[in-house]
Amino acid sequence: MSNSKVTRPSGRTPSQLRPVTIDRAFTKHAEGSVLIAFGDTKVLCTASVLEKVPPHKKGSGEGWVTAEYGMLPRSTHTRSDREAARGKQSGRTQEIQRLIGRAMRSVFDLKILGERTIHLDCDVLQADGGTRTAAITGAYVAARDAINQLLKSGTLKSDPILDSVAAISVGIYQGVPVLDLDYPEDSACDTDMNVVMTGKGGMIEIQGTAEGPAFSRTELSALLDLAEQGIRDLTQLQLAALK
Amino acid sequence: MSNSKVTRPSGRTPSQLRPVTIDRAFTKHAEGSVLIAFGDTKVLCTASVLEKVPPHKKGSGEGWVTAEYGMLPRSTHTRSDREAARGKQSGRTQEIQRLIGRAMRSVFDLKILGERTIHLDCDVLQADGGTRTAAITGAYVAARDAINQLLKSGTLKSDPILDSVAAISVGIYQGVPVLDLDYPEDSACDTDMNVVMTGKGGMIEIQGTAEGPAFSRTELSALLDLAEQGIRDLTQLQLAALK
Amino acid sequence: MSNSKVTRPSGRTPSQLRPVTIDRAFTKHAEGSVLIAFGDTKVLCTASVLEKVPPHKKGSGEGWVTAEYGMLPRSTHTRSDREAARGKQSGRTQEIQRLIGRAMRSVFDLKILGERTIHLDCDVLQADGGTRTAAITGAYVAARDAINQLLKSGTLKSDPILDSVAAISVGIYQGVPVLDLDYPEDSACDTDMNVVMTGKGGMIEIQGTAEGPAFSRTELSALLDLAEQGIRDLTQLQLAALK
Amino acid sequence: MSNSKVTRPSGRTPSQLRPVTIDRAFTKHAEGSVLIAFGDTKVLCTASVLEKVPPHKKGSGEGWVTAEYGMLPRSTHTRSDREAARGKQSGRTQEIQRLIGRAMRSVFDLKILGERTIHLDCDVLQADGGTRTAAITGAYVAARDAINQLLKSGTLKSDPILDSVAAISVGIYQGVPVLDLDYPEDSACDTDMNVVMTGKGGMIEIQGTAEGPAFSRTELSALLDLAEQGIRDLTQLQLAALK
Amino acid sequence: MSNSKVTRPSGRTPSQLRPVTIDRAFTKHAEGSVLIAFGDTKVLCTASVLEKVPPHKKGSGEGWVTAEYGMLPRSTHTRSDREAARGKQSGRTQEIQRLIGRAMRSVFDLKILGERTIHLDCDVLQADGGTRTAAITGAYVAARDAINQLLKSGTLKSDPILDSVAAISVGIYQGVPVLDLDYPEDSACDTDMNVVMTGKGGMIEIQGTAEGPAFSRTELSALLDLAEQGIRDLTQLQLAALK
Amino acid sequence: MSNSKVTRPSGRTPSQLRPVTIDRAFTKHAEGSVLIAFGDTKVLCTASVLEKVPPHKKGSGEGWVTAEYGMLPRSTHTRSDREAARGKQSGRTQEIQRLIGRAMRSVFDLKILGERTIHLDCDVLQADGGTRTAAITGAYVAARDAINQLLKSGTLKSDPILDSVAAISVGIYQGVPVLDLDYPEDSACDTDMNVVMTGKGGMIEIQGTAEGPAFSRTELSALLDLAEQGIRDLTQLQLAALK
Repeated sequence: MSNSKVTRPSGRTPSQLRPVTIDRAFTKHAEGSVLIAFGDTKVLCTASVLEKVPPHKKGSGEGWVTAEYGMLPRSTHTRSDREAARGKQSGRTQEIQRLIGRAMRSVFDLKILGERTIHLDCDVLQADGGTRTAAITGAYVAARDAINQLLKSGTLKSDPILDSVAAISVGIYQGVPVLDLDYPEDSACDTDMNVVMTGKGGMIEIQGTAEGPAFSRTELSALLDLAEQGIRDLTQLQLAALK
Repeated sequence: MSNSKVTRPSGRTPSQLRPVTIDRAFTKHAEGSVLIAFGDTKVLCTASVLEKVPPHKKGSGEGWVTAEYGMLPRSTHTRSDREAARGKQSGRTQEIQRLIGRAMRSVFDLKILGERTIHLDCDVLQADGGTRTAAITGAYVAARDAINQLLKSGTLKSDPILDSVAAISVGIYQGVPVLDLDYPEDSACDTDMNVVMTGKGGMIEIQGTAEGPAFSRTELSALLDLAEQGIRDLTQLQLAALK
Repeated sequence: MSNSKVTRPSGRTPSQLRPVTIDRAFTKHAEGSVLIAFGDTKVLCTASVLEKVPPHKKGSGEGWVTAEYGMLPRSTHTRSDREAARGKQSGRTQEIQRLIGRAMRSVFDLKILGERTIHLDCDVLQADGGTRTAAITGAYVAARDAINQLLKSGTLKSDPILDSVAAISVGIYQGVPVLDLDYPEDSACDTDMNVVMTGKGGMIEIQGTAEGPAFSRTELSALLDLAEQGIRDLTQLQLAALK
Repeated sequence: MSNSKVTRPSGRTPSQLRPVTIDRAFTKHAEGSVLIAFGDTKVLCTASVLEKVPPHKKGSGEGWVTAEYGMLPRSTHTRSDREAARGKQSGRTQEIQRLIGRAMRSVFDLKILGERTIHLDCDVLQADGGTRTAAITGAYVAARDAINQLLKSGTLKSDPILDSVAAISVGIYQGVPVLDLDYPEDSACDTDMNVVMTGKGGMIEIQGTAEGPAFSRTELSALLDLAEQGIRDLTQLQLAALK
Repeated sequence: MSNSKVTRPSGRTPSQLRPVTIDRAFTKHAEGSVLIAFGDTKVLCTASVLEKVPPHKKGSGEGWVTAEYGMLPRSTHTRSDREAARGKQSGRTQEIQRLIGRAMRSVFDLKILGERTIHLDCDVLQADGGTRTAAITGAYVAARDAINQLLKSGTLKSDPILDSVAAISVGIYQGVPVLDLDYPEDSACDTDMNVVMTGKGGMIEIQGTAEGPAFSRTELSALLDLAEQGIRDLTQLQLAALK
Repeated sequence: MSNSKVTRPSGRTPSQLRPVTIDRAFTKHAEGSVLIAFGDTKVLCTASVLEKVPPHKKGSGEGWVTAEYGMLPRSTHTRSDREAARGKQSGRTQEIQRLIGRAMRSVFDLKILGERTIHLDCDVLQADGGTRTAAITGAYVAARDAINQLLKSGTLKSDPILDSVAAISVGIYQGVPVLDLDYPEDSACDTDMNVVMTGKGGMIEIQGTAEGPAFSRTELSALLDLAEQGIRDLTQLQLAALK
């Protein structure tokens, strides 16, 4: 593995994120509404405050944080079927929205939240790889905005958010570990890994898959190094956006 | 009926459209991609060219133009269920997407289009009344862009689009006919009508409903006058955007 | 436009309804049960009184009026799929049953009705064009019978029905506006419009679509004249049937 | 068991059928269309000839005979949910339509029928017990009419129908075996059995269920005697109707 | 009919059951868990005690007994679609689970059971004909185990099970009535009948179908004789297994 | 972290697998049929050879390997709804079956397999934690058996399986990394990770989630050490079972 040799389709260095932009208050109705871009990947993340909880939390005194994910049919290179028209969400969609939900709950104290739900909707307007990591990173900012509103209005007395959370993909592309795969890299890489970490640097979730040959512990270690650095950068960008 | 007296929540005059903006190439993959805003109503309309036709057109030598419509769950004041998660599209959604499809087909020569499909996806990012009329007005521009691409590439030799098409709502608000209802007006009006017309001024579809008391022929006539004028304005805006 | 020249497949004059029959108490269980025929179009309309309301009306003190529509699979020229077997209602079915529901609610005072539901089921036994207009016209009679029963039994003290309601189709066939399209006309006409009006002559709903070339305000006006006259006739037939 | 003592709600003797009427050509589009009444139970049975076969018969040279069953929502004492709206057919519906299909296939030579389908639709307009037996008895007449049309037109050279088929219910009501249960008897009886037989007296299907206490071989034998006689009567009524 | 001549594929005599084994406590979580084998047909029957009842029993003081049935996709000769993946249970599955439920309820006193549900799940691990009869026969043993547990723990003071219940198939194979059809016989037989009886010899359900030519009363009688004997044997095997 | 101090509910040492048994030819119809037990977790894995491929592989000359997963309703402590009855597979089910499919494909050369599908069905008969890792480990053995049959019969000339594959869970229980979590540990652990590796020691997939506090790189490393050892043991057990 020699990082210096790889030529990424985008011309980035192996450890370089795509340009990340985080626009808050992108739409007006949601308590939090963030358009996040990782390069050409654009995801609209809204946070809705609902004064009710799902059945398994009723009467518990605790709240709930959940997420749904969708792609607009023509967010992709070729048009995909609309899931609402097909009548069901794909396995991939469910997998991703479950991941986003777990990531967000990992930084929430549900007791402090009280019996209400933060419902995060992550809708991909344009896809170019890494939609789930952009969704998690943007959803945190939307959730932060929604919670800030509840704190400001006095609905919440103390802050249920314990830390920030962000996510990034890493992968082995042409034999070299690289950060933040875009679509051309994602389609061609051997190993693809998504890493979710808190602002304080704790690991929340890692999901790594060998698309081609199996990977080794050494490669895994290199990928995690890259991911840790990428998430440090994203955490800074989240902080800056929230100022 | 005295137009001079009504106070519209937005301060508009009875015959005044909301500010309309039409952004082309809003996303990068679709052959046509338009973000249209009627005030705070924002709809992303993409046109996809598919080199296939539905079964009822196979072997006919003719093409097809169809539309799908959706609202992001938090495009509305309070969060709505995601139709993909509920597993079916509501009656309202189906009604609207059928309307958009009919409107678009009314200006297409399907023989000239040949055996291919123009699939229009209209997704509401933010709703404030009039999503279906914005969708039709924006979808035309997206379709125009997609067809222009086919003409430019030589795939099409002649233009299958016969005229432009646009749509606007009119209604009786506090006893006065007004143009382009926003959400506060839509919720409170007595009669609500959607009118679809071609650039040349032909009527394609009118759908008027008395939400409160029945309406008269005289009121209907006043509403249609307003609509005709509104569509003339929208046609100009479409033309300007396409330059 | 010259009304005198057109030859309708049925030999009717442009302003002539098909023979309309309205048979009450066609089946024995429903509180109202009407078999209505517009020529060869035959729709069984039943009104069921349910002592419950949908969630959005619970505790409101108000009732609800709603409708469902279906076609028997072989009510049509060639057999259609059974919607129950396919597992969903088509967009067309939903559109029609929403229209019937709105039409019926337009003549009901839901406060006087109290917390109960009038559920109208309109099932097409034989189709020959105009099933939705026959359904609305017949459903009114069924609803009237059901309400009369509630008044007679003392369940209701005053009458929640404010007016009668009926519907008719009009269209431009071979360049001539004609009333009450049958299937051969419906398949071949340029513009097709359904009009719903109250017995007192107020307009409840108009839905007009250019199937071929766009239509003009003048044509629209001629169509509405025909519809007004047709609905006056249907109103008389409803009254006669209810005697 | 003493037949002389039972008082049936309808006043019938234990071995008496309800009045049976069979109206052919009840609707105009289907190749066969029969309204059959067993007392207050009224079922519309249509036979459609489709020039195609399901996948498992493609290329076999054989045809297919199948059936679907439905109840109009207010054919029953209290309104039932519409299966098309609920999005699926109940287990009971599927059970009944499978039974009708088997019964009809038992008298068909599918080779002589050739690669076409006879699709029987049995829709209950009014229910008062015994809808499945009325459906089978009426469907035979509808199928006979449809096949006669194919023979007359020369599409079929020889007759694929080998025998007639009819069905009747029997049950033990207040300890006494009775023929052709109506709804009050059906709700209160101990054992309920449906018997399908051919015109020549062969047994095609028996389905007997103890709703209350178990039944004995002796009781079963008495029930089958009644059923055989009832089917002989129905066979005569079918023959008479087809003249 | 001459029993002495038939050669059954398995070499059994016409009145011979396949080897039957009944293993209790096959899995550890269910209150009753039985693996029953009728030869190569193996069905796992579990009985679950749920401290709730379906809506139609709420507040009645009575309990409920119900069943669900499924086949593992590769329990059959060729792989069948997984019903969970297809999104619905087939008509056959529903028919069978309704039959199992009725059979089990026939031996239960629901008042003594009290407001709780015995939910029987019958899952076919390997199919070789007769899965529904094995399911009923095994489900009884599982239910018995579950009820015994409730009696032992004092939850129930008296026994809600009034009798045992078992089921067997019979059919006419190569002109000869035979007991307990295996798959090769089932595929080739003319008449196929399933019989459910109680331990005391009362008949609960008979379902007989002529797959080929119609059958006669004499043949029916011979089949029922076989079935009665088969169920006596199964009743002994149930008793032995429960010791 | 001090491995010596933790008391696992099962009394196992931190690096101890549960007793693993692998029974081949558990059912008779499938080309491969394996009952695998990880302690009280029992999964039936069948491999079916289908001489067809899904649409995206048609004409490619390549085969496909896919998996479906299900739990019997009472495989769990309390009864779960049957997915076939609910009409859809849960997100969890889809996530797991996608994981199994990826794991199996990672050791297959789809070109050598040719245009046929190996369909793996993993059905949980009894659940006690680790059903997905048992499923993968057992599915490999079933696939191996199915491929051996194809090699033996000459349908395949060379072996499409490149390596073995197995999976195990690891987690942090009471602060200590432990191998092969059973249900009591799974419910109570802080971090839960599933690791899929090949027989040669390459990593195919890691999925780790912090259920409680975030985890560190050091903890991750300890977990992977345990997993590597566990998979070495499972690989030996697979080899032994296949002898």
